[in-house]
Amino acid sequence: MIGRLNHVAIAVPDLAAASALYRDTLGATVSEPVDQPEHGVTTVFIDLPNTKIELLGALGADSPIGKFLARNPDGGIHHLCYEVDDILAARDSLKAAGARVLGSGEPRPGAHGKPVLFLHPKDFNGTLVELEQA
Amino acid sequence: MIGRLNHVAIAVPDLAAASALYRDTLGATVSEPVDQPEHGVTTVFIDLPNTKIELLGALGADSPIGKFLARNPDGGIHHLCYEVDDILAARDSLKAAGARVLGSGEPRPGAHGKPVLFLHPKDFNGTLVELEQA
Repeated sequence: MIGRLNHVAIAVPDLAAASALYRDTLGATVSEPVDQPEHGVTTVFIDLPNTKIELLGALGADSPIGKFLARNPDGGIHHLCYEVDDILAARDSLKAAGARVLGSGEPRPGAHGKPVLFLHPKDFNGTLVELEQA
Repeated sequence: MIGRLNHVAIAVPDLAAASALYRDTLGATVSEPVDQPEHGVTTVFIDLPNTKIELLGALGADSPIGKFLARNPDGGIHHLCYEVDDILAARDSLKAAGARVLGSGEPRPGAHGKPVLFLHPKDFNGTLVELEQA
């Protein structure tokens, strides 16, 4: 069912400093920051030859990564995003296997504008899993 | 400097259950477990089209992931591994930029038999970073 690893998301307390670290210290290709007010985050993408790192900074008072950053003040790996061909079929198969889908259970447009869902980390070895329709 | 994302490592409390989850529930290609006594872990690799997930189970009483699993009993993402062309040049450049290399600072053979180093998570947004010579 799961295909490519679309990205690894890392929540960071200071997006400018994290961008500079990946660009200058690690020598990677780093995008400009993009505010995503409907998701409560600002995103920066690190383009690697085979996948992407998504740096997440909090945007606004109610950012969904606010609690994570309060628990992890240095930042930390927030989620993995796997691509699937058919997100509704993937969701139904996962629910039938007992996995919990977060929120309403209906796919929403993610940071790339494609339909995404999040799966409960307790059902996936403590890993928050995003599924994105490829 | 950094190239491909070689793998994402996830520490898990029950390697057989995690392997079954990735194989049966997520429909991925899952390797047989391999004990790595010199690293204190048993590894299972999930082959995705563009990268790998490395599932890590504790092996022996002194496993280096023992404390991590005590803090994260469900498991969790343990590290990211980036490939570099020249691990000694990468190390020297990172040290010059103020990043801390763990252990002796000398590369050791990793799970694939290639030279690896680990970088201090405090210097990389709370992310333990492994560098592997490609």
